[in-house]
Amino acid sequence: MAFMTYLPTLTLFGVGSLNNLHTQRIPGKKALVVISNGKSTKTNGSLDKTLEELKTAEVESVVFDKVQANPTKVIVEEGAQIARENGCDFIVALGGGSCIDASKAIALLTSNEGDLWDYVATGSGGKKQAPNNPLPIIAIPTTAGTGSEADPAGVITNEKNEKLGVGDLRLFPAIAIIDPELMKSVPPKFTAYQGFDAFFHSAEGYIGKRANLMSDMVGETAMKNVGKYLERAVKDGSDMEAREHMAFASYLSGIEMVVGSTSSQHSLEHALSAYHQDIPHGAGLIMLSKAYFTYWINKHVCDERFVKMAQLIGMENASKAEDFIVALDKLMKACGVSDLKMSDYGVVPDEFEKMAENAIYTMPGQFAVGYTEMTKDDCVAIYKQAYV
Amino acid sequence: MAFMTYLPTLTLFGVGSLNNLHTQRIPGKKALVVISNGKSTKTNGSLDKTLEELKTAEVESVVFDKVQANPTKVIVEEGAQIARENGCDFIVALGGGSCIDASKAIALLTSNEGDLWDYVATGSGGKKQAPNNPLPIIAIPTTAGTGSEADPAGVITNEKNEKLGVGDLRLFPAIAIIDPELMKSVPPKFTAYQGFDAFFHSAEGYIGKRANLMSDMVGETAMKNVGKYLERAVKDGSDMEAREHMAFASYLSGIEMVVGSTSSQHSLEHALSAYHQDIPHGAGLIMLSKAYFTYWINKHVCDERFVKMAQLIGMENASKAEDFIVALDKLMKACGVSDLKMSDYGVVPDEFEKMAENAIYTMPGQFAVGYTEMTKDDCVAIYKQAYV
Repeated sequence: MAFMTYLPTLTLFGVGSLNNLHTQRIPGKKALVVISNGKSTKTNGSLDKTLEELKTAEVESVVFDKVQANPTKVIVEEGAQIARENGCDFIVALGGGSCIDASKAIALLTSNEGDLWDYVATGSGGKKQAPNNPLPIIAIPTTAGTGSEADPAGVITNEKNEKLGVGDLRLFPAIAIIDPELMKSVPPKFTAYQGFDAFFHSAEGYIGKRANLMSDMVGETAMKNVGKYLERAVKDGSDMEAREHMAFASYLSGIEMVVGSTSSQHSLEHALSAYHQDIPHGAGLIMLSKAYFTYWINKHVCDERFVKMAQLIGMENASKAEDFIVALDKLMKACGVSDLKMSDYGVVPDEFEKMAENAIYTMPGQFAVGYTEMTKDDCVAIYKQAYV
Repeated sequence: MAFMTYLPTLTLFGVGSLNNLHTQRIPGKKALVVISNGKSTKTNGSLDKTLEELKTAEVESVVFDKVQANPTKVIVEEGAQIARENGCDFIVALGGGSCIDASKAIALLTSNEGDLWDYVATGSGGKKQAPNNPLPIIAIPTTAGTGSEADPAGVITNEKNEKLGVGDLRLFPAIAIIDPELMKSVPPKFTAYQGFDAFFHSAEGYIGKRANLMSDMVGETAMKNVGKYLERAVKDGSDMEAREHMAFASYLSGIEMVVGSTSSQHSLEHALSAYHQDIPHGAGLIMLSKAYFTYWINKHVCDERFVKMAQLIGMENASKAEDFIVALDKLMKACGVSDLKMSDYGVVPDEFEKMAENAIYTMPGQFAVGYTEMTKDDCVAIYKQAYV
């Protein structure tokens, strides 16, 4: 199976690597530093540290602290407006996947006229190529899950509950600093959600048509690391060996999305959290996953790959595809996330039809990855199966 | 262990991928197509195919067909002269490691004044940064061994028998086309030499101080693929599954040199073939390897890594560091390269002192990778041990 690799982001990985930011060739003179609307980067010192590094590099900074989980088009527009008003010529994304994704959209919109949706390639997007280069981005992930530091796309939600991808090869971050030290203060629950997001990036690609030698290498390594270290990172956030390996797994799963692809589970989850924006993306995936993967197991399109995945996450004697669900369930229990319920987030079964349509309409490419066609009815059935 | 990743080369991998060259964004209007002074690319159709692809992409071509194994500074100067005279604005390197390495030096010298050696960073090099951007490069490997398509350096020999690295981050190829189809006609002996070169790139990095999560991933995968497929590729050159996996192993071992490092075995071999330019690089490594790795095994600095390497190349029940030599010897025998003799190439023991000095002087960085210091006397002892 052929593949294409393009990983132009200069990536520094390791505990303490943020301390080396000032020694890099900074791609601008004035940064828009994009952080979340929460408190973590302000209280755990990572914002101060980042601003200090930029100052040492003789770069000015403006902080934009409004990005919410599942970031919206409105926030992106506001960020781009502030970048323009302040003459920022590059973006520093300090945060989780939402921050880095929003930063990519802000980078694109700051230097291009019109509406963000003009440059979205699927669903209701205008499918235009942005005429001007986006602002360069420095991505500094503070969570291990998104892998967004390694890829050139972000997911943004519009006012019609469409979560769509803003993607452009020019949106690969110029620099990524993956410093596991910054992930130390992530609470156990979110550590688990994010870790499973990383896991599913690789697991989805592994059972899809675009799997290849390169995506298998990064995917298998990522899944193995999640299987070995996620529980430890959840149980003791200061276990730096576990944090380091989870940061690595997340980074690799980001690469997996470049050299391979995620699949329709991601579309189904984006539709879910598009209507229920308080569902963390990783939690949504966890709630869908057993039903989703059981659907594929029952198709028997790649049994040996499910066996391998079960082995990778610790079930050494796995011998049949169904064993993967057992191993997955065990990992969820160990990480304390096996009892998540859609109903707790206010989801009702009447929404499934609408969500299934939304998933197929907004991200058809992820459906094309499956070995067999997944219909709208199939999607509804998966939502129902997953519903508690 | 911290690491840095930077892999900006757009890489197309897969059987038939050369057919997609014309669809890529070609980085110029007139190519200097650099091939070896041998016949292979002319007789197996790969040169014609490449020229046709360039023509389809509306690009002019000038062929430079003089690069020898272990390419010299003189040939690089001639290539750069021809590129300048013909107004070539990019390079297409079609061939093995020698062609791609020479192309990097040509790319640098064509757009920069002065002597190539001004821009060499070690040994007798002038240690200057080239003021102008090198010409962009498209690398099309026709062998599986060098990995040069994935890294930003080339090794060139001057008139004083110094083999030195020409390296610059701007020398990463813009595009690499790794098409295993082009490797089909490589004769068994050279398939083996090249495959072992790929193997040692990864094995050397694996037992050195710069090993890290990323280099371990690519190195282990590369070595496993060599262990599983090299013998098949040697025994049946038209076994495309084996050729594909060897091309992948070679590519990964090239990445290993970017995210990790080769070690002093490479320096020792470069010194050997600098004085005996008819020794293919891979053959030189094979002749040195058992003595070299035995030296490190006796240091007991990373026993568990030798056990792992033995397992990766097929000795599943390996349990002690020494088992690696047994497994390595078995693989060499299986590939028909266990009886190479330095004396057959005219090497005499009196040269070892000079070679050891040369190795340490020209490539000190590769010595710095070792867990303990390797002295000149150690080098001489390794040469003697390896001598037959």
